[in-house]
Amino acid sequence: MSPKITTELLKQLRQVMKNPKYVQEPVQAYIVPSGDAHQSEYIAPCDCRRAFISGFDGSAGTAIVTEQHAAMWTDGRYFLQAAHQMDSNWTLMKMGLKDTPTQEDWLVSVLPEGSKVGVDPFIIPADQWKRMSKVLRSAGHDLVPVKENLIDTIWTDCPQRPCKPLITLDLSYTGVSWRDKIVALRSKMAERKVMWFVVTALDEVAWLFNLRGSDVEYNPVFFAYAIIGMNTIRLFIDGDRMMDTPVREHLQLDSTLEPEFRIQVMPYGSILSELQAVGAGLSPKEKVWLSDKASYALTEAVPKAYRYLTPYTPICIAKAVKNATETEGMRRAHIKDAVALCELFNWLEKEVPKGTVTEIIAADKAEEFRSQQKDFVELSFATISSTGPNGAIIHYKPVPETNRTLSVNEIYLLDSGAQYKDGTTDVTRTMHFGTPSAYEKECFTYVLKGHIAVSAAIFPNGTKGHLLDSFARSALWDCGLDYLHGTGHGVGSFLNVHEGPCGISYKTFADEPLEAGMIVSDEPGYYEDGSFGIRIENVVLVIPAETKYNFKNRGSLTFEPLTLVPIQTKMIDVNLLTEKECNWVNEYHQKCREVVGAELERQGRHEALRWLLRETEPLARVQ
Amino acid sequence: MSPKITTELLKQLRQVMKNPKYVQEPVQAYIVPSGDAHQSEYIAPCDCRRAFISGFDGSAGTAIVTEQHAAMWTDGRYFLQAAHQMDSNWTLMKMGLKDTPTQEDWLVSVLPEGSKVGVDPFIIPADQWKRMSKVLRSAGHDLVPVKENLIDTIWTDCPQRPCKPLITLDLSYTGVSWRDKIVALRSKMAERKVMWFVVTALDEVAWLFNLRGSDVEYNPVFFAYAIIGMNTIRLFIDGDRMMDTPVREHLQLDSTLEPEFRIQVMPYGSILSELQAVGAGLSPKEKVWLSDKASYALTEAVPKAYRYLTPYTPICIAKAVKNATETEGMRRAHIKDAVALCELFNWLEKEVPKGTVTEIIAADKAEEFRSQQKDFVELSFATISSTGPNGAIIHYKPVPETNRTLSVNEIYLLDSGAQYKDGTTDVTRTMHFGTPSAYEKECFTYVLKGHIAVSAAIFPNGTKGHLLDSFARSALWDCGLDYLHGTGHGVGSFLNVHEGPCGISYKTFADEPLEAGMIVSDEPGYYEDGSFGIRIENVVLVIPAETKYNFKNRGSLTFEPLTLVPIQTKMIDVNLLTEKECNWVNEYHQKCREVVGAELERQGRHEALRWLLRETEPLARVQ
Repeated sequence: MSPKITTELLKQLRQVMKNPKYVQEPVQAYIVPSGDAHQSEYIAPCDCRRAFISGFDGSAGTAIVTEQHAAMWTDGRYFLQAAHQMDSNWTLMKMGLKDTPTQEDWLVSVLPEGSKVGVDPFIIPADQWKRMSKVLRSAGHDLVPVKENLIDTIWTDCPQRPCKPLITLDLSYTGVSWRDKIVALRSKMAERKVMWFVVTALDEVAWLFNLRGSDVEYNPVFFAYAIIGMNTIRLFIDGDRMMDTPVREHLQLDSTLEPEFRIQVMPYGSILSELQAVGAGLSPKEKVWLSDKASYALTEAVPKAYRYLTPYTPICIAKAVKNATETEGMRRAHIKDAVALCELFNWLEKEVPKGTVTEIIAADKAEEFRSQQKDFVELSFATISSTGPNGAIIHYKPVPETNRTLSVNEIYLLDSGAQYKDGTTDVTRTMHFGTPSAYEKECFTYVLKGHIAVSAAIFPNGTKGHLLDSFARSALWDCGLDYLHGTGHGVGSFLNVHEGPCGISYKTFADEPLEAGMIVSDEPGYYEDGSFGIRIENVVLVIPAETKYNFKNRGSLTFEPLTLVPIQTKMIDVNLLTEKECNWVNEYHQKCREVVGAELERQGRHEALRWLLRETEPLARVQ
Repeated sequence: MSPKITTELLKQLRQVMKNPKYVQEPVQAYIVPSGDAHQSEYIAPCDCRRAFISGFDGSAGTAIVTEQHAAMWTDGRYFLQAAHQMDSNWTLMKMGLKDTPTQEDWLVSVLPEGSKVGVDPFIIPADQWKRMSKVLRSAGHDLVPVKENLIDTIWTDCPQRPCKPLITLDLSYTGVSWRDKIVALRSKMAERKVMWFVVTALDEVAWLFNLRGSDVEYNPVFFAYAIIGMNTIRLFIDGDRMMDTPVREHLQLDSTLEPEFRIQVMPYGSILSELQAVGAGLSPKEKVWLSDKASYALTEAVPKAYRYLTPYTPICIAKAVKNATETEGMRRAHIKDAVALCELFNWLEKEVPKGTVTEIIAADKAEEFRSQQKDFVELSFATISSTGPNGAIIHYKPVPETNRTLSVNEIYLLDSGAQYKDGTTDVTRTMHFGTPSAYEKECFTYVLKGHIAVSAAIFPNGTKGHLLDSFARSALWDCGLDYLHGTGHGVGSFLNVHEGPCGISYKTFADEPLEAGMIVSDEPGYYEDGSFGIRIENVVLVIPAETKYNFKNRGSLTFEPLTLVPIQTKMIDVNLLTEKECNWVNEYHQKCREVVGAELERQGRHEALRWLLRETEPLARVQ
């Protein structure tokens, strides 16, 4: 892929940075964060402002443009991709490396004295505003809100904000009605003595009202906010989608309800003025609860004394612990997903040697098989279908310019997943359709050992996920190998494939303790730049464990894999596995046979079933 | 031990909390932190205010007294001890447990509206002041500095502040002169563009000037502050100890030096006014560097705009990385320490069956053997000599009321160490002088597996210690066991036995990355309340490791044990060890034989040598 030429765009941006039509005073730097007004990770095309200005379209990154410089901060997943997509106007700031400055420190080092740094106050999260503003101020600069988004002023062909129809989810999918969720939320609000709660994250709005949408690709969410009071519910949403009969019935908009469950529907754009009105009408001790990641604009709408900010909202925490209905749905979704992948890998095994299968064809085929499954809605993220050196680009997505043909000489890495009405999947398998080298097998086996170490880990109730991260790395570390990304993320239930508040990462973000019912991914990897990438990813459910002494009744936890797709035994150097690890693989494969095998049988997919049986033959260790 | 009766003292304290002689306005709560004006962990008797008011004399704890309540926060090491030492006036707040409120939250929950919370501004660290003050203010209360320490006003027989002679350390002990340390410090200051650095921690003053003292038991430090400018050095220290000729020569006080190395000696008590004078004379952009743990009083002495606060000072970070001279000294100290412990354990093995050895006698005997070694100065902390149930009190120290007799029926845990002029030691061994039960051996073996997992861990350069903590717990977790303390702490070089900025803990404090030359402890444990305690502790040096792939030249690290004392093989259930673990034990014991054996031989300690040889017989695994 060739980089986007940004010389002219940067020139235009630098002009509007000084244009009194848009800024009260000229700004010497302008920050273009990744997110939208809801701090979403995946965003609608109209919100891809950072990709528009820089060319880099990975899921995480912040651009800062000054009069002289243009710099992009992103993490290890995207170092290669960003370097490929950006032209020489841009400097890549590799986050996580020791010598990389923070955005604030970099600004301080390059800005002339007394500079103004501009940012869209709806896009920047309040916690980030606070941190940056403090550092900049102490260095004599000012962070200033620029109401009109400056990228939008130069983005002449910016697409429209989507406003697609909604899907209603009944109890058979959610387990809990939206009314009961509101009741539970209000009880959490009462505990903390807050009177109002502002729902700003799109997946939190969707979860709370048991609604789904398709305004953002891959994430079944819709553009909306909500303000929940102890006696009122306000939903801010645009378009005629609220005129849809099933939606009206689901939300009981036309029924005579107790007043505290009556939903007032208001225009999406009125959130700020409504919240300002709420803020203005507060009496002492009436607090408003917001995520500390809510936008600076909304946070400022509530007078400081009345704000109650937390890193994770009660909805985020409740949403993370899946109930029995959701867990069963996730299990079903993963079985269907495994059926699709058995079909795919069986097909690839036959087709790859012919030399006609490209990364894009393989990705499309994966989608085709998934779409044949019941309740399939869409993919849960852009399929990472990568072979050979492309596999080392951690969040690679094949495009025509990079599209490589799969061959029997290269490792193929497929990281893919789907949204089904009953659950969200995310699975990575690394396959070789010829004969892997000893080194490739060695690396694969270390990654597998790390995957097993997390998956089979037993830990006391209340353990935070970041304490498990090193288990995934230990076997790699022993040989001087590592990978520059976290080991796992929370996974939504027919919702965002990445969600908080738990995860497994060496980064000590403020993760919440793991508890039974939470669902995370387990995905260690190893990447050899220019050669290959390896990752083994299952989605796993936190479940109670049985231990001999049970932590003095504190309770024991472990993981149960929900993903049930064979791990290619051809890639395993069995002699590097312990007996326990070998048994883990064999038991996992036995479960794939039983559970997925039965479903393949039921669906009459006999060839894929034969493939599954062959791929799950037990490993035998040489003693 | 019986608890301290505090009814009368608390009554007196509550009176002075309202006495206009001491407080401008009555305070409704008074905080008594653990530390002294230097935020020391170990403190002089005159600074033991929290122990005086509560009876609880563990090394960590904060007391808060309100009109109605008296509460004590401490961590898992001290839950049992605090419960034993405090009377029913006190509520124990178990830090680290989920339901325990923070001090701020608790204050907010018990205080009447608009309360004042008092604290000595010299004792409370600035970062803690900031945190507490913010929470209290947002709940309508005020944190206020009370200049006169209220405990001191009721402590009629408070001992005097010690002022003991100093020890000078030449290059053969320190490897670097104080002048070169000043030069290095000034270069760090220049890097950060600060003009002044305030040395507030006692071990940092001692390290910087290559001086040691004995004002605080176990810690070879002396009461002093320093202010280092780009061209000036001010040392704040009391007493006639600066009249001592070797000290004057060491500091070159009477020589004609370049002005920037001339040390101005000033009274200890003048630090505040001198720092205020420095603060008042600053021109824009002249910053003053302080630890964010420096006292609120000193931090406030510098106008906010001129403060440069960091969690770790450049001295703290430089001090943690031992140079070759210090490392060699630490090695020598540990060999001598091992000689003493071989003597002790040999002696215990003969004496314990007679039923005449108490915990105190054993501790005294350990000190006696240590004191026979060259350059012995004092112990590095109060010896934890504990048998049977006392072993479960994590930071137990035997006193006449609790003093138990060692027997062949109970586990004996000895955690002890010494200060030698060439290094500081800290070692824990858990022994059974009869026949351990299968359960005791099982628990011991899990702890050993954890110890080995950390000690043998290989990790990339730049890894933070907290990422290694779970390695120490994994074997225990598998069986549902855990321990409620961190796994390791930094160790000084003839300095404090606990020092920053690195450590190995599940608590995600802001530890600095591990680098070669750092020295930490590796001390997992298991404690069965009312029955026994197990801990296996070595002091280990961070060293470069050789790995097959060396993290793409990022560099590999591992640990080398400096402690060389046999681990009792009788306590090991060999069948629970992997082959690798078994080899680790055998290689470790082989090294003990070679290195400590040679020294025992040299010192003519033949009986202890025979004991060492017997205790280091190789383990044999049943295949």
